[in-house]
Amino acid sequence: MSEVYTFGIKSGQPTALINITNEVQNVIKDSGIKAGICVIFAPHTSAGITLNENTDQDVIRDFVMETNKIVPISDGYHHIEGNSAAHIKSSIVGVSQTLIIDDGRLLLGTWQGIYFADFDGPRIRKVYVKIIEG
Amino acid sequence: MSEVYTFGIKSGQPTALINITNEVQNVIKDSGIKAGICVIFAPHTSAGITLNENTDQDVIRDFVMETNKIVPISDGYHHIEGNSAAHIKSSIVGVSQTLIIDDGRLLLGTWQGIYFADFDGPRIRKVYVKIIEG
Amino acid sequence: MSEVYTFGIKSGQPTALINITNEVQNVIKDSGIKAGICVIFAPHTSAGITLNENTDQDVIRDFVMETNKIVPISDGYHHIEGNSAAHIKSSIVGVSQTLIIDDGRLLLGTWQGIYFADFDGPRIRKVYVKIIEG
Repeated sequence: MSEVYTFGIKSGQPTALINITNEVQNVIKDSGIKAGICVIFAPHTSAGITLNENTDQDVIRDFVMETNKIVPISDGYHHIEGNSAAHIKSSIVGVSQTLIIDDGRLLLGTWQGIYFADFDGPRIRKVYVKIIEG
Repeated sequence: MSEVYTFGIKSGQPTALINITNEVQNVIKDSGIKAGICVIFAPHTSAGITLNENTDQDVIRDFVMETNKIVPISDGYHHIEGNSAAHIKSSIVGVSQTLIIDDGRLLLGTWQGIYFADFDGPRIRKVYVKIIEG
Repeated sequence: MSEVYTFGIKSGQPTALINITNEVQNVIKDSGIKAGICVIFAPHTSAGITLNENTDQDVIRDFVMETNKIVPISDGYHHIEGNSAAHIKSSIVGVSQTLIIDDGRLLLGTWQGIYFADFDGPRIRKVYVKIIEG
């Protein structure tokens, strides 16, 4: 019960949304827990966890394009590492999601997938998953 | 304990924020659980769950107006269904909220209400509520 | 187990991000709980809770500057109190975070700090913390 599950992912572009639904479903399946909630957490300040459409990749492409318009890569920022836009997107999208487990699986809508959003790739990143039974 | 509660809602406009505070409070009341947390989850990719002012409806009107400026309905998107703005707003606002239950009720600030945000209405939508006692 | 922990904070500027990581870590330490999750909740409609870089204060300065560009303080809003931008930012950032407790401490990335974001300061504000063991 008190375990924290971890898996790694690798992003290939400066902004990359990676579908991690299967990884999280497998964590839940392996835990044997049938009902409860799970917290999916990115221990990073220039990435996020979000849910969005799992079918047409143009939704993800549009998300990347539009968030780069909303939070431009360069915009007179002061942070010397040059990745302020990634930090800001991280706070807008959020670094965790809390989902429902039912019947041994994540309870998701038909079109929902879970994405790790790397806003400052390419990098190797980590995801933590914590399950609470109930 | 292991139950997931569900209720339906119907939005009447393209962008509609519907106050679901009473529905969620009733779920908690009916459960009989006095202390814990609850996850409110929208199984949709063009909607969200958010908390905001429960009194002056102009706050909600301003939220709708301004988010339409931040994420315009048309902006050179590629997704063929034409609702990319709704998908992007869903990821910005988030599809779930995790709240505290205390003394048999949601612990909210005086001015806080829970809203289902339909960014691609009018539609019939679903909300899941999961309670963890503790 | 059924307790809700509360602490107060005071913001000094119209927009202020206040690092509350130590306050939350102390709540967890005092609870004696070694594993589980915790919900950090702001009972306010013009504030938020977010995670971001804990070292270079320019990240926070850039966040404040850029979110003021994305959601301008004045933009033809209708809400008579004049703080619509703060309400909108609150829904974008979110009023709560659910984090993992491991080994008696919050499980955070090296660079992650927890911030109370006051978008309508200066004010005296409250934070609720609820711990679920598991």
